[in-house]
Amino acid sequence: MSEKLWFEDFVPGDVRTYGSYEVTREEILAFAAEYDPQPMHLDEEAAAETLLGGLAASGWHTCAILMRLAADAFILNSSGMGAGGIDEVKWLRPVRPGDILSVRHTVLDARASRTKPDRGFVKLRYEMMNGKGEVVLEQTNSVMFGLRTPGAAA
Amino acid sequence: MSEKLWFEDFVPGDVRTYGSYEVTREEILAFAAEYDPQPMHLDEEAAAETLLGGLAASGWHTCAILMRLAADAFILNSSGMGAGGIDEVKWLRPVRPGDILSVRHTVLDARASRTKPDRGFVKLRYEMMNGKGEVVLEQTNSVMFGLRTPGAAA
Repeated sequence: MSEKLWFEDFVPGDVRTYGSYEVTREEILAFAAEYDPQPMHLDEEAAAETLLGGLAASGWHTCAILMRLAADAFILNSSGMGAGGIDEVKWLRPVRPGDILSVRHTVLDARASRTKPDRGFVKLRYEMMNGKGEVVLEQTNSVMFGLRTPGAAA
Repeated sequence: MSEKLWFEDFVPGDVRTYGSYEVTREEILAFAAEYDPQPMHLDEEAAAETLLGGLAASGWHTCAILMRLAADAFILNSSGMGAGGIDEVKWLRPVRPGDILSVRHTVLDARASRTKPDRGFVKLRYEMMNGKGEVVLEQTNSVMFGLRTPGAAA
């Protein structure tokens, strides 16, 4: 396991790639049945008539898979304290059964909290790729991390 | 069942409220185990030590529940063609086991496609409330809808 990450370890411009998540037909259907039962996510024949041209994962499902890949790659082994929201998500291409998803993230910004010397905010842009290297999703948000040395970044 | 909704039925300023979704502890844990295994979503004791102060649903889980409520309320019975992404999400308050979630949405904008006379884009702001009427999530995005009368809005 790699070393625990703190706020100071996120340097603007840094890029990391990680993950290998196979999206199955069964998982696409199960997520859709629970949370997004639109025809393009739930039924092959109906999906063929939609703009997606065939069965594809719910965009929210794709976001959830990105969360899992980021959690496994670094968030669970970090001083991460959570996020207040999402700046933007773009669903660029359909995610199909059998796609193998991976992630590349770029640190856009890192700033210490002005009011709490023990934490700071790291803005990350995530790109999720399929097995052909095509970007299927882009997402940007800020995550709060504890400082290794509280006060040092103020 | 209410009447099928088309692009023309979304008028800026319109407000609708709907939904009643009880979030169970089991569902919070199941979603977290699959997609967001951070301690505040997965383990009561560990969650008590986090900023959320106790077990709370993953923000992505809350987004997925919003999708389900919107699907049931109007998207499944509409000319909805999907969305290209999300403009913004704010996770404002923790969603706890036992919370009953409902939604209020406001139509912010509706504009016909400049290139395709059969469709248009409706920008919606969603607020999700818990049983106390507190807003737990805000989300804004644009959804594509087919026109009842193609070309009429051009």
